[in-house]
Amino acid sequence: MSPAATKPPASELMAAARRARDETIPAPYRLPKNFELPKNATLILESSGLLSPDEKDIINLDATGLAAAIKDGTYTSVQATTAYLKAASLAQQGTNCLVEMFADEALERAAVLDAAQAAGQPLGILHGVPVSIKDHIDVEGHDSPSGFLGLVGKMMAASDAHMVSILRDAGAVFYCKTTNPQSLMHLETEGYLGITASPYNTDLTAGGSSGGEGALIGMKGSPFGIGTDIGGSVRSPAAACGIYSFKPSVGRLPYGGCNVPIGPAGCEAILGSHGPMGRSARDMETYMRLVSASEPWRVDPTLHVKPWRVVKAKPGRKLRVGVLRDDGVVLPVAPIRRALDTAVDKLKATGDFEIVEYTPFKSAENWDIISKLYWLDNGKLVYEQIAVTDEPVVPLTDWIIQQAGGVDRTKDETYALVAKRDAFRSELAQYWHEQDVDVVLTPVGPSPAPQHGTAKYWNYTSYWNLANYPAAVFPTGMFVDPAIDQEDAGYTPRNDKDKYVRDTYDAQVSVGAPLCLQVVGYLGYEEETLDALKKIDAVVNA
Amino acid sequence: MSPAATKPPASELMAAARRARDETIPAPYRLPKNFELPKNATLILESSGLLSPDEKDIINLDATGLAAAIKDGTYTSVQATTAYLKAASLAQQGTNCLVEMFADEALERAAVLDAAQAAGQPLGILHGVPVSIKDHIDVEGHDSPSGFLGLVGKMMAASDAHMVSILRDAGAVFYCKTTNPQSLMHLETEGYLGITASPYNTDLTAGGSSGGEGALIGMKGSPFGIGTDIGGSVRSPAAACGIYSFKPSVGRLPYGGCNVPIGPAGCEAILGSHGPMGRSARDMETYMRLVSASEPWRVDPTLHVKPWRVVKAKPGRKLRVGVLRDDGVVLPVAPIRRALDTAVDKLKATGDFEIVEYTPFKSAENWDIISKLYWLDNGKLVYEQIAVTDEPVVPLTDWIIQQAGGVDRTKDETYALVAKRDAFRSELAQYWHEQDVDVVLTPVGPSPAPQHGTAKYWNYTSYWNLANYPAAVFPTGMFVDPAIDQEDAGYTPRNDKDKYVRDTYDAQVSVGAPLCLQVVGYLGYEEETLDALKKIDAVVNA
Repeated sequence: MSPAATKPPASELMAAARRARDETIPAPYRLPKNFELPKNATLILESSGLLSPDEKDIINLDATGLAAAIKDGTYTSVQATTAYLKAASLAQQGTNCLVEMFADEALERAAVLDAAQAAGQPLGILHGVPVSIKDHIDVEGHDSPSGFLGLVGKMMAASDAHMVSILRDAGAVFYCKTTNPQSLMHLETEGYLGITASPYNTDLTAGGSSGGEGALIGMKGSPFGIGTDIGGSVRSPAAACGIYSFKPSVGRLPYGGCNVPIGPAGCEAILGSHGPMGRSARDMETYMRLVSASEPWRVDPTLHVKPWRVVKAKPGRKLRVGVLRDDGVVLPVAPIRRALDTAVDKLKATGDFEIVEYTPFKSAENWDIISKLYWLDNGKLVYEQIAVTDEPVVPLTDWIIQQAGGVDRTKDETYALVAKRDAFRSELAQYWHEQDVDVVLTPVGPSPAPQHGTAKYWNYTSYWNLANYPAAVFPTGMFVDPAIDQEDAGYTPRNDKDKYVRDTYDAQVSVGAPLCLQVVGYLGYEEETLDALKKIDAVVNA
Repeated sequence: MSPAATKPPASELMAAARRARDETIPAPYRLPKNFELPKNATLILESSGLLSPDEKDIINLDATGLAAAIKDGTYTSVQATTAYLKAASLAQQGTNCLVEMFADEALERAAVLDAAQAAGQPLGILHGVPVSIKDHIDVEGHDSPSGFLGLVGKMMAASDAHMVSILRDAGAVFYCKTTNPQSLMHLETEGYLGITASPYNTDLTAGGSSGGEGALIGMKGSPFGIGTDIGGSVRSPAAACGIYSFKPSVGRLPYGGCNVPIGPAGCEAILGSHGPMGRSARDMETYMRLVSASEPWRVDPTLHVKPWRVVKAKPGRKLRVGVLRDDGVVLPVAPIRRALDTAVDKLKATGDFEIVEYTPFKSAENWDIISKLYWLDNGKLVYEQIAVTDEPVVPLTDWIIQQAGGVDRTKDETYALVAKRDAFRSELAQYWHEQDVDVVLTPVGPSPAPQHGTAKYWNYTSYWNLANYPAAVFPTGMFVDPAIDQEDAGYTPRNDKDKYVRDTYDAQVSVGAPLCLQVVGYLGYEEETLDALKKIDAVVNA
């Protein structure tokens, strides 16, 4: 008997994993078999008839608002948790965004928190608030296969990831883990559990790699969650699902307790950050304040000792916003240009902002460096992990690894690339300050949420990972409208990438996709970036 | 004619370099040929008869004090510069601490600054103050061979190093560059210019690698200078020469503009920091505030965005000082133990400190990791540089490179070592906080300044480089006294390293060597470390 014969077929393992996941959804929250899922999955929240009026009220609050409502006794944590278990169950059925739900554990925790509050002993600023967690971040007692079929059942976390422990100490209620793609390196979310879709249009991706968080929060199945970002992984899903997210510079938020079997330990060439995803700009700041107040640098020596600073307005100086309309490689398609134009017009109309054009700086060079830094080992660890079960290689997994050039780089080649990274960062710092901008307002990608399997242009987000600049995403309240968002048929593409984005965008298919924008600040200026985000968001979404 | 025959002998090049250096000392400040140099070189300041009473007053001020005296008109910058040109000339002749003096340029700059002040336009907080610079840090228009004979005349700096430009903008007057050893990696200072000695006892090393700064400042030939530290290089010279120094965590002070041809660009496994060296605890803080106020992170993307914080006393909590008497590998010799005991007694007597014992954590493991990280290429670049002229390899150069084990490590071995570094840092963070100490008070080395060529135990300083914790050195006002500092003859050494330190220490030889101590704070806690330094220094030197 050959060893191959003893290996169960990957298709069986995948089917089993999906069944096991589906069974974690409480039976009363499962839709009837004949329920017709709409392309706009958000409609299920109403059409399912599952949520009470109070529960609908609850799922419309952001985390800060829900915490206040629990604190003042408007709702209990058990009520809030119940509402979110229902909404998350619907989100799963509408978008395929969950890896696991653990309703009993969550309700038990919520009851304990309600008792603590009744006894006058609330835990912290998120007391009683349900919080969702991306799969590859450890939650004690739960599996964390992180998108690899071969890891299912093998990654039971003995303790919380650092960031999860901070949330738990602050009173969060954990109730689910959310999907990420095979390899963790797609700006989509496809793996052994299938494809996660945008709640606004299930023909489109939820983005990735924190696509489960995106879809869940976008569908109001969670008030707040955390993901990770090394190339756009909290920003792409936020954009695809119409929510807020924030990627700080590396060194500001703890990363410990993430299972990333995709690169060797000890390789520092390009590092990711974790980051918040949620339903308001203020929640981004609430989270940053919470983590900073825990002094995470006392546990994690990779972090900077940086208490959260209060941003003071500079007398006589308006917020100076650089508008980066086009990275010089791929021109954003019509609805993205419309969203940015509209936002800029609104900002200008207030008279409170100084708006300047920001021209792109070495976009193509940036991608050339970072795409190689992602895979210094030519994807060896990823392919080894996939080979454990012979699960199908998702085409986007091959694609992103091939971007690195197909070689296992030597130590000296690695050093040379890191030196290029540092040279780029130095040059960009000089360029940025020459523009004298406080922040840059720019698209999150060249198109709205792409059709499944087509998200191949990362540079509007990954650019800021190589730069290591903080970057936040916010929804504009606008959506793709085929009546006005047709791309100009007479446009001559600049290059293959530009052509590809146009070929894969279709306003008819993309109907209803949310339009989001990105606010970028200088390296390490998390406070200034979120301060600007709040100001810009308040105007654009007024 | 073979290429070898065209290469001038290294001995000739070395002699030429020394002559050229000697000729930069202004003729009036050269001692007579028959002048007998005392073992305690500091005596020359008086015995040479070169300095006027005002000049003696000037060279007794720290940088902060001298800046105030220039600001209030007590002295001009030209007077201050003249005093220091004289004292530095004597320091050079007594200790061999300079690479170059540039008196004319300095006096010209001082005159310009005096005129600016007369016009009511002082530059900054160091207006008119002479500042010395370690050779491998660029100063515009000056050579920077950094200890390598083959680089003499080839490293003319087209612009200032980042830190030098900050000092220049603040009004500093540059007038000399100071010696560092071949390879930059000795805790001594020997190279093509010869050996730099401690001003207090020229039979002993000035420490290294910023030994020129140490000897110059220790001999009052400079009020303030800057060096670099990756294993003890601003702390060992401070200890050997009886002055103050401070090594912050990496990421706090800019390093740009240092010529370090000893490791490949892009290798981040172990990084150095630059740091101030001077004559008072307050000068350490003055410098940190100055650099922070310049927002150096806007130029250098490797730096943390960290404005200088004001340390607030914690109500009801005394400063909690952990005393690390012994690293568990090499017991410090008698005078070091005496200095630490005396300092602790003084702190206890005030009742203002809580003193606890701090036991060592993984000292040997630390050295095993960092000594390999220093030479991931097995010293290839250093030996290539030395081979340019066939200058003699200084034995300590071979010794430190051999510590790494004699192999050019692969990429995977490198990653494994970096992962070990990170694991050590995580474990130490936990250990440190379990001790609940604010700072640790500990020796700077196991002995006073070693005899020339014998400084081979780095771990009291390099330990805190692998840890990346801020560490400051201060003099205790005590010196080696053969009458009380004989080592116990009946002591049985623990191991070869312990035996070596005892074999190379002799109280008779080390007479008059200054005794200094080290204050270490938690990673990134530069403010708290210097606050503690000031408090401890004030008591010990009361």
